[in-house]
Amino acid sequence: MTSAAPIRVGVLGAKGKVGRAMCEAVEKADDLELVVGVDQGDRIEGIVDQRTQVVIDFTHPDVVMDNLHFLISNGIHAVVGTTGFDDTRLAQVQSWLDANPGVGVLIAPNFAIGAVLSMRFAAAAARFFDSVEVIELHHPNKADAPSGTAYRTAGLIAEAREKAGLGASPDATTTELEGARGADVSGVRVHSVRLAGLVAHQEVLLGTQGETLTIRHDSIDRNSFAPGVLLGVREIAQRPGLTVGIDPLLDL
Amino acid sequence: MTSAAPIRVGVLGAKGKVGRAMCEAVEKADDLELVVGVDQGDRIEGIVDQRTQVVIDFTHPDVVMDNLHFLISNGIHAVVGTTGFDDTRLAQVQSWLDANPGVGVLIAPNFAIGAVLSMRFAAAAARFFDSVEVIELHHPNKADAPSGTAYRTAGLIAEAREKAGLGASPDATTTELEGARGADVSGVRVHSVRLAGLVAHQEVLLGTQGETLTIRHDSIDRNSFAPGVLLGVREIAQRPGLTVGIDPLLDL
Amino acid sequence: MTSAAPIRVGVLGAKGKVGRAMCEAVEKADDLELVVGVDQGDRIEGIVDQRTQVVIDFTHPDVVMDNLHFLISNGIHAVVGTTGFDDTRLAQVQSWLDANPGVGVLIAPNFAIGAVLSMRFAAAAARFFDSVEVIELHHPNKADAPSGTAYRTAGLIAEAREKAGLGASPDATTTELEGARGADVSGVRVHSVRLAGLVAHQEVLLGTQGETLTIRHDSIDRNSFAPGVLLGVREIAQRPGLTVGIDPLLDL
Amino acid sequence: MTSAAPIRVGVLGAKGKVGRAMCEAVEKADDLELVVGVDQGDRIEGIVDQRTQVVIDFTHPDVVMDNLHFLISNGIHAVVGTTGFDDTRLAQVQSWLDANPGVGVLIAPNFAIGAVLSMRFAAAAARFFDSVEVIELHHPNKADAPSGTAYRTAGLIAEAREKAGLGASPDATTTELEGARGADVSGVRVHSVRLAGLVAHQEVLLGTQGETLTIRHDSIDRNSFAPGVLLGVREIAQRPGLTVGIDPLLDL
Repeated sequence: MTSAAPIRVGVLGAKGKVGRAMCEAVEKADDLELVVGVDQGDRIEGIVDQRTQVVIDFTHPDVVMDNLHFLISNGIHAVVGTTGFDDTRLAQVQSWLDANPGVGVLIAPNFAIGAVLSMRFAAAAARFFDSVEVIELHHPNKADAPSGTAYRTAGLIAEAREKAGLGASPDATTTELEGARGADVSGVRVHSVRLAGLVAHQEVLLGTQGETLTIRHDSIDRNSFAPGVLLGVREIAQRPGLTVGIDPLLDL
Repeated sequence: MTSAAPIRVGVLGAKGKVGRAMCEAVEKADDLELVVGVDQGDRIEGIVDQRTQVVIDFTHPDVVMDNLHFLISNGIHAVVGTTGFDDTRLAQVQSWLDANPGVGVLIAPNFAIGAVLSMRFAAAAARFFDSVEVIELHHPNKADAPSGTAYRTAGLIAEAREKAGLGASPDATTTELEGARGADVSGVRVHSVRLAGLVAHQEVLLGTQGETLTIRHDSIDRNSFAPGVLLGVREIAQRPGLTVGIDPLLDL
Repeated sequence: MTSAAPIRVGVLGAKGKVGRAMCEAVEKADDLELVVGVDQGDRIEGIVDQRTQVVIDFTHPDVVMDNLHFLISNGIHAVVGTTGFDDTRLAQVQSWLDANPGVGVLIAPNFAIGAVLSMRFAAAAARFFDSVEVIELHHPNKADAPSGTAYRTAGLIAEAREKAGLGASPDATTTELEGARGADVSGVRVHSVRLAGLVAHQEVLLGTQGETLTIRHDSIDRNSFAPGVLLGVREIAQRPGLTVGIDPLLDL
Repeated sequence: MTSAAPIRVGVLGAKGKVGRAMCEAVEKADDLELVVGVDQGDRIEGIVDQRTQVVIDFTHPDVVMDNLHFLISNGIHAVVGTTGFDDTRLAQVQSWLDANPGVGVLIAPNFAIGAVLSMRFAAAAARFFDSVEVIELHHPNKADAPSGTAYRTAGLIAEAREKAGLGASPDATTTELEGARGADVSGVRVHSVRLAGLVAHQEVLLGTQGETLTIRHDSIDRNSFAPGVLLGVREIAQRPGLTVGIDPLLDL
């Protein structure tokens, strides 16, 4: 972060909502320099002309593979938030990278560092506590309950507990009004709150005799992916090959 | 609390678990004096001999009516936490009080001031918020879910919302894993968490555009009724007749 | 809220940032109808032409008095968020209202219902708890610490405790790193947190033997005044004369 | 936890307050067997007679060194919560262990797993957030502010931030009532709340653009060290040599 010259960064999809937010975030960072923004109709070769080191891609599944082929072939690292990567696509990217061994590509479905840390901490702590439950809280326009993040969190916790030989959390409930004890996700109780005035929040509660540990993540802004993307931009040059998800960058 | 002479207090059921805690609490209070403790086998007349002004009764449904008859007849105020008062019993106490108009008796099922305040505040706030949900959290040995307090809280909130012409809290959920959205108590969603390391806790979340109000009560000690009982002892002399529940003493 | 015809509402300062938000909020409400928006250069008489019943004024101290004189003279109720009302101005408005006894005017410095309720609940609860402290949490660009709301909250709590004969909250601290125990506002400890990712939040913690009560307000949106303004619009017709602050509308 | 035979456990200081709690905890655990309890006046050789595998020592600085010499010489593992270990004492224990290479000794000043995890998670997360502050909350009889745990937590956070090249958390405060912004511990703001009804609690708040991560630990029971001690008992046989603090056992 104190390197002599700033990293030269380009943004693909620079006029989209997310792309513009990313351009702003890069411009604000002292150690990064926005050298080129490319959108539909622009020449992608501008990226090479500007000696770009890392490109951020928030575009569309229809064009992202062409983008990546171009970037990898030209020795440019990429941080990709575009969706639609299945195993076939990941294998294709991997083969391009095999042919260009110095290049790093990070593809992540979720750049919210806080959410990823929450899940990792919850999973790491799970084996030390008798009980664990998850409460996720969102705005009332959300269609699914529980949230995708809560499903993943509960899954990781369940895996950690099973590995440690722990059974179900203790629960003496004999009289329950339907739904009171929440949903059962892999044996972990998950409660979904929907409330005006909220955005996206999650709380993991872990408890044992006389003590509890609570890990809470609050996201109140659609731009909360920016710090995760910038982390990727800063680190991808040191991580040649394909990285999926930001977890490996967090060094936990 | 700055009155010249301390109030002369007696405790019935003085050797029981709760009774002993009450004796201790009275002894610690500067404005109260413990003048007599009575238990099975002791002469109840000792209360009169000691010119007791207020008696605390945590005894048994089998004996509490005899106790009250004795106290009211002798012009002694009473604060009663003993259970088992139905309408017939309350009418009987009322008739004794009609015959002794200067005497005050407080009978309450729940002396936890924080719990009672929480319910009152939640009900008072309910009509100003689009959304409301209740989360109650208890130790894993609890048999019923939701808790009795959560039922009452949700009921009071539902009543306040109906009176204000509010419909259901907004909720766009179309895909729900069974139980995720909690139990429906009078139209209010209630979530019950059971976790080792907890005792008795409740959170009411109220939300409207851009803001939320959270009212949380934590009880970690079986003695948390003591401040409520002492409040009753201090105020009952100024409240002749029958008072049911500590709510009227809270002057909200 | 179930009245036959919607209330006919006008907005003064309709093109300003707050005015536009108010126009939107009125349009979204089923029981209100936006009949006229007036800004600089528009004829204020349009308000009368449209048979407006209540006008919302978020304009400027330079013009608000002329606005109010016009509205009151024409028998139109007003809900005013414009700043700059001192005693002289309030007396002037009162004298206009004396001459038009059916008209209601609400002037409030803070329309955030949740913030006002928090303060009122904290003050109402204060006398029942041995201890109380305030934590306020804001974005790191805030210049003052504590916040104005925290000052007012602590002041109301201190007043309630003094009236109840309570001394200082117990505190055995003998070794303190400077500042650890917060600021002293009227004898109440106030802690100010400044954190990226926050907007405006406040927590009042009240505690006594074995139990605590926490009242928390979270505001994440500059539009969180809208519900309070709409409450004023709905109720001002039933409150002829001058009302200062939204507290009286909350019926606590 | 599913090993064939339970671990044979002895307790030194078995009649002290902590010792009795440890005896109970061992008896409740299916995978552990309490084979001997020793206190002042008892023969320490009973530990050998009972073929004890691991001994828990919560005794006194005056006797703990003799205990450890005896245990190590006899090839018995030890988990030690007794205080008073300085560098000289640790070096002595190390030399005894060098002579008995199969034996493991765990000496820890704090067995509260939740507290240790909190610190570790806070330190691991610190480099990803612009801002961080610590709030610790305790009962009002505590003499020092901030708590020792808060000092250590802030120290670990400061170290992680410095290593990552982060400067101070952003803070635009220009007008501060003395103490409002808390104490400065290694550049991290720490706020100490003292409140009746609390026991020992700590919250680390980390924030960046649009999101916050909160790690909270609540301890409401003096027995909350038991799970940490049992963890030590279960793992010390696989960790020959000297282990200081339970951190290495948590595999983070």
